[in-house]
Amino acid sequence: MTHAHQHLAYVLRLADNALILGQRNAEWCSHGPALEEDIALANISLDLIGQARLLYTHAATLDGNKKTEDDYAYFRTEREFANYTIAELPHFGPLAGTTRAERDYAVTIVRNFLYSALMIEVWSALQASSDAQLAAIASKSIKETSYHLHHARDWLVRFGDGTQESHRRAQAALDYLMPYTREFFVTDAVEQAVADAGIAPLASEFEAAWREEVQAALEEATLEAPEDVKHVTTGKHGEHSEHMGYLLAEMQSLARQHPGASW
Amino acid sequence: MTHAHQHLAYVLRLADNALILGQRNAEWCSHGPALEEDIALANISLDLIGQARLLYTHAATLDGNKKTEDDYAYFRTEREFANYTIAELPHFGPLAGTTRAERDYAVTIVRNFLYSALMIEVWSALQASSDAQLAAIASKSIKETSYHLHHARDWLVRFGDGTQESHRRAQAALDYLMPYTREFFVTDAVEQAVADAGIAPLASEFEAAWREEVQAALEEATLEAPEDVKHVTTGKHGEHSEHMGYLLAEMQSLARQHPGASW
Repeated sequence: MTHAHQHLAYVLRLADNALILGQRNAEWCSHGPALEEDIALANISLDLIGQARLLYTHAATLDGNKKTEDDYAYFRTEREFANYTIAELPHFGPLAGTTRAERDYAVTIVRNFLYSALMIEVWSALQASSDAQLAAIASKSIKETSYHLHHARDWLVRFGDGTQESHRRAQAALDYLMPYTREFFVTDAVEQAVADAGIAPLASEFEAAWREEVQAALEEATLEAPEDVKHVTTGKHGEHSEHMGYLLAEMQSLARQHPGASW
Repeated sequence: MTHAHQHLAYVLRLADNALILGQRNAEWCSHGPALEEDIALANISLDLIGQARLLYTHAATLDGNKKTEDDYAYFRTEREFANYTIAELPHFGPLAGTTRAERDYAVTIVRNFLYSALMIEVWSALQASSDAQLAAIASKSIKETSYHLHHARDWLVRFGDGTQESHRRAQAALDYLMPYTREFFVTDAVEQAVADAGIAPLASEFEAAWREEVQAALEEATLEAPEDVKHVTTGKHGEHSEHMGYLLAEMQSLARQHPGASW
């Protein structure tokens, strides 16, 4: 891959993470446990999808083609999506079933917490990117992410330090999701190239800060981080879990039925 | 019913319309035909659910009990919901099938247009309500509704005056939905009582203005209003279509599984 390709690949990773996690959070849209939470989750989802739109539009410029945000979102194959695996997982934790009513809000919250704690660092660093457009997107996104982190952290503590049942669920969600975070910090060629070009920092540089933030929240929540695992998931390289195909089918079906339609 | 009961019943009608239509619009959440429309519909849905929350909170005060917005939304039976029947209809028009991918965006748009055109008049009049809290909610809601009307009207014209297929769908949606609007304007005891008390205007008073607004948009869209029907739907009296039960089951199941839960 050339430098330009790696730059593009990096921006698409950011976009895909935001879009796919935005999609997942949108599943709570009008099916939340309370009207207020319903609206909070929907707003978080809209923020993420809004970030994805800006990033896809920027990607199209880098790509030098006439693609639109919708081309990236609706007309790429599973293999072309480069989001972290954690973003695509359904809201069913290890304790839950598979129907909508059995979605586990603890999974939603723990994921949003782990991801937002990462993105606070990423956006913060990206504000100094040599890619001015990316820096501008970072400045906007960091404010949103700060709210997402605040929201998720509050609930994490409330769950962990709540009832026996809520504690049990939060701990199970954490045990389930934490291994997926390894993918955040394992540097690959794309990340090395954009770091060398001053476009983006290496995530490994703020792994320590992330761990500290996570640990502080877990202590407050009386939860325990599970032991580290060796396996690293591969979503950012386009190798996804079995859940990704269903998510894309739902998300893309309507647009694909009416390609190029003006409505 | 006493005067106080009728006042409460009227506020709950407004709330239920907003909540149920908000729920329906939320079904497009992340399944829309384009990212931009996805977000627009989700925002409209959030506005409506936000209006419902304010109105339910106000209803609780009028009710003089300790109910919350969630009690009204999640713990009432179908018979207790007093939304117009048009609000609860699914997005499948007469031309569409019944799978998610077959939802008809023309139905969504035409309904939002017909309803918003009504609510512009309602909120406008309610700003002068003798119920100061209701007047305040109206002042906030009219701005949102103005955007909803603008959005729906734009698409209505684009569909009607668009391709042969989009015109056919828009006309079919209009033929399907227009008969349900009769319910807007048939005065009942609740409406008469709140009108007598200076709380709310009679909808029949602005039927002419509504028809004019609708007719102007239809002409621009090269669409034709179907002939008037005699049948009047009865959603506002709690007698709903067969679709309402499914909508409530989806919306209420999670909250009912965990009544009083703090998460």
